[in-house]
Amino acid sequence: MKTIKKYIIATLGSHSSLQILKGAKDEGFKTLLIVKKDRVDFYKTFPFIDEFIEIDSYKDFPKIEEILIKRNVILIPHGSFVAYLGFEKNKAMKVLYYGNKSVLDFEEHRLKQRKWLEEANINMPKLFTNINTIDYPVIVKSYGAAGGKGYFYARNKTDYKNKIKQMKSKQFIIQEYVIGVPLYVHYFYSNITNKLEIMSIDKRYETNVDSLGRIPLTSQQGLTIEPSYVVVGNSTLVLREAMLSQAYDMGLRTIEASKKLIDKKGLYGPFCLETVISPEQEFFVIEISCRIVAGTNLFTHGSAYSWLYYDEPMSTGRRIAREIKIAIQKDKLKSILG
Amino acid sequence: MKTIKKYIIATLGSHSSLQILKGAKDEGFKTLLIVKKDRVDFYKTFPFIDEFIEIDSYKDFPKIEEILIKRNVILIPHGSFVAYLGFEKNKAMKVLYYGNKSVLDFEEHRLKQRKWLEEANINMPKLFTNINTIDYPVIVKSYGAAGGKGYFYARNKTDYKNKIKQMKSKQFIIQEYVIGVPLYVHYFYSNITNKLEIMSIDKRYETNVDSLGRIPLTSQQGLTIEPSYVVVGNSTLVLREAMLSQAYDMGLRTIEASKKLIDKKGLYGPFCLETVISPEQEFFVIEISCRIVAGTNLFTHGSAYSWLYYDEPMSTGRRIAREIKIAIQKDKLKSILG
Amino acid sequence: MKTIKKYIIATLGSHSSLQILKGAKDEGFKTLLIVKKDRVDFYKTFPFIDEFIEIDSYKDFPKIEEILIKRNVILIPHGSFVAYLGFEKNKAMKVLYYGNKSVLDFEEHRLKQRKWLEEANINMPKLFTNINTIDYPVIVKSYGAAGGKGYFYARNKTDYKNKIKQMKSKQFIIQEYVIGVPLYVHYFYSNITNKLEIMSIDKRYETNVDSLGRIPLTSQQGLTIEPSYVVVGNSTLVLREAMLSQAYDMGLRTIEASKKLIDKKGLYGPFCLETVISPEQEFFVIEISCRIVAGTNLFTHGSAYSWLYYDEPMSTGRRIAREIKIAIQKDKLKSILG
Repeated sequence: MKTIKKYIIATLGSHSSLQILKGAKDEGFKTLLIVKKDRVDFYKTFPFIDEFIEIDSYKDFPKIEEILIKRNVILIPHGSFVAYLGFEKNKAMKVLYYGNKSVLDFEEHRLKQRKWLEEANINMPKLFTNINTIDYPVIVKSYGAAGGKGYFYARNKTDYKNKIKQMKSKQFIIQEYVIGVPLYVHYFYSNITNKLEIMSIDKRYETNVDSLGRIPLTSQQGLTIEPSYVVVGNSTLVLREAMLSQAYDMGLRTIEASKKLIDKKGLYGPFCLETVISPEQEFFVIEISCRIVAGTNLFTHGSAYSWLYYDEPMSTGRRIAREIKIAIQKDKLKSILG
Repeated sequence: MKTIKKYIIATLGSHSSLQILKGAKDEGFKTLLIVKKDRVDFYKTFPFIDEFIEIDSYKDFPKIEEILIKRNVILIPHGSFVAYLGFEKNKAMKVLYYGNKSVLDFEEHRLKQRKWLEEANINMPKLFTNINTIDYPVIVKSYGAAGGKGYFYARNKTDYKNKIKQMKSKQFIIQEYVIGVPLYVHYFYSNITNKLEIMSIDKRYETNVDSLGRIPLTSQQGLTIEPSYVVVGNSTLVLREAMLSQAYDMGLRTIEASKKLIDKKGLYGPFCLETVISPEQEFFVIEISCRIVAGTNLFTHGSAYSWLYYDEPMSTGRRIAREIKIAIQKDKLKSILG
Repeated sequence: MKTIKKYIIATLGSHSSLQILKGAKDEGFKTLLIVKKDRVDFYKTFPFIDEFIEIDSYKDFPKIEEILIKRNVILIPHGSFVAYLGFEKNKAMKVLYYGNKSVLDFEEHRLKQRKWLEEANINMPKLFTNINTIDYPVIVKSYGAAGGKGYFYARNKTDYKNKIKQMKSKQFIIQEYVIGVPLYVHYFYSNITNKLEIMSIDKRYETNVDSLGRIPLTSQQGLTIEPSYVVVGNSTLVLREAMLSQAYDMGLRTIEASKKLIDKKGLYGPFCLETVISPEQEFFVIEISCRIVAGTNLFTHGSAYSWLYYDEPMSTGRRIAREIKIAIQKDKLKSILG
């Protein structure tokens, strides 16, 4: 059995890095955080980070790549990687990288993503291309928008025309606004054991939309409040058990479709289907995230679901580290690196 | 001390079955799941289910009852039992069944239920029978409506008259709509130790009402959105501690009243008081569920409350299994079967 | 090393007393609850309370102080202390008391509090003194209002003038109503190790405002619903990790400023910054609580954050007991008593 001793697990100090490195430490790895100078004191208060590399900006990441390669660092990507480094630089990285980089293309381009989910027979909100045929209300999303920033809601054509003028991005999609409750399912798919698990479920906490209900009708009169969808936190949910096997099956079909459409390896590791559930109890998938999502930060000590699979606390961060450990021990590390 | 070895704990694959069987396994029982064919693969991903009986529909349950009886199965009922099998078939079951079946009558019939809670001196929303004397807004609920489906809200008489036409059920009640926050208290009452515990607390996640606050006033203009109350999930809550002893006392009084009104044994095992709390910090109980509720699914590893009673993870599912184990060991199994 | 055996940890039976005494017991202390007669049966159902002193009303607390002093009781204050005993009686207590009483002044007087937070360079909503210069909407808060009771919202001058007439308190502030999501950060600062920790994060559950979003626009027509902010519970949140170091730094600056402004010891132990986060991801601190807050009741078995620092369940209640234990063992008890 190969040893994990010569590897270091590392990530950028943001998004879900605490969970990732805590999990790595729990699995016996050495841990390293690449972190901006103004945050390092904060991260130093945690006992599970062995080493820090300070940089001025996450954009400086490529400057230190050489060091990481020499030290056998396995990098765990999270949402901030694409946000800070950009899509092309992510793909160009030479450091050991957990996950299939070919998936990034399909995640980034909203129409490719849609094709993938259609292939997986996943129900989605309608997509509009001709603004004369839109059934309002809609939500308009720029490409690669991070954390809901830059999304807007339009209740009719006039509203749409006013708001699209202020849209900075030229690449965007117009999606049916499904009236129903949002719910995010966090999966983990092992391409070593070929097993899919539901790790946890959350709901995003978005400013300002998640505070608007607190202002009643009469109190809103005279105020023009534009809804915004900036994610600043997450809260715990469980799904009605009768719908849980459907959620599981959606995950399975997404994996299967990725193997056909993207490449042989397809999607593996943590991913998330972002759904809205209608009063008819139908799932509408509004997006897929192909890496660890911030909603899993709720579950550093395990979730209502992970405790059904594991008799020890199993966060998604720890699950990743466990997968890497198993891969190393079985001499299959290459098969999980991107 | 009698052994639990000859018993198998079983339930239907839905609602809260994962929690129930995980809890049973943690207590040392053999476990069995009666499950629809299209869900069996999903349930097989969990390590704590020893055996599966596949059926085409939960309505086919009676066909397998003979087998269950022969194998000393103790069945744990949950919300899907009444929903799928109907009230009469539940009562007619011959298999070992945890809980007092006499309670089902009082739970099913909304007016009997009300009488019970009145006997327990529980505060409830007003009930209207003459539509000319209604104080609007109201909520209209059909009998035995599962998961909030078929409820409707009416803000005035015209609204009521329009909506009642579409109501399928002939049996319904008209309840005052209390403007306040919903909160569900999960209790467990042991009729062996005569002790009541607050196991956990949740809030339901209902589509579409729990998403409507995300659409501000100006954005709702031109849309006619009818509120619906279909439960698709649950989220965690704790109650202000100053009100916790009141919640506890409501539970105690409910138990006491059941012994007077229903039969000597009365209500035991898990139950839930579904409350709305007004700005005057008054509880209004809108319903009682006399079995494990889905909100407990949040707490497979214990809740903020269960960890105060137990130094090990204690879900409501596990608490049931523990109760059965104690009953078997003390040779009191009969006293907890319905 | 000094022994903790001669000390008893005690508090009033309300607010967060279960968590405090459970934590004290886990750390090896004897525990005592001072409790109103009508609540004693409820508290007796928990296994970690060694002793009870029953009183008729929390206002009778001074009558038993002599006993507490004789028995080496260390009292842990929580939100109900100021609410029930009043500010002056709290300061006048002679019993061993965890925390710096000099801080109470600054917490109680809203303008002193504001000065403190300004000194700490904390961003706050605007404060208005001249009603002719107000930018509406605003929220009006009486001094020392417990649990959000007595707050009101005003959307314009007419609304303000109508509502201020009904305000009982003569002491109040008029604050800008920031449209954004509320989020409460629970800190613990050790003045023995000089280390600050983020223990957990919650959102309050307020009646009726947290239910209003469930009534859509058309259904609210004809109803005049006045928003109220009475706290009856709490729910779990995590904060976007990119903002976590900011939250940490706000905590540090608050501690530093307290040492300058209040006295040498300054603020230590548990405290909470109550924030609203705008769509620009800016924190607005609306209040500080200088003791354990009820939101920590969610985390009797630890939180997503505490599990990053500790490999055992660490509630804020337990963290307090641990601090007292360390102080006793290092013969530094005096430095943590107020």
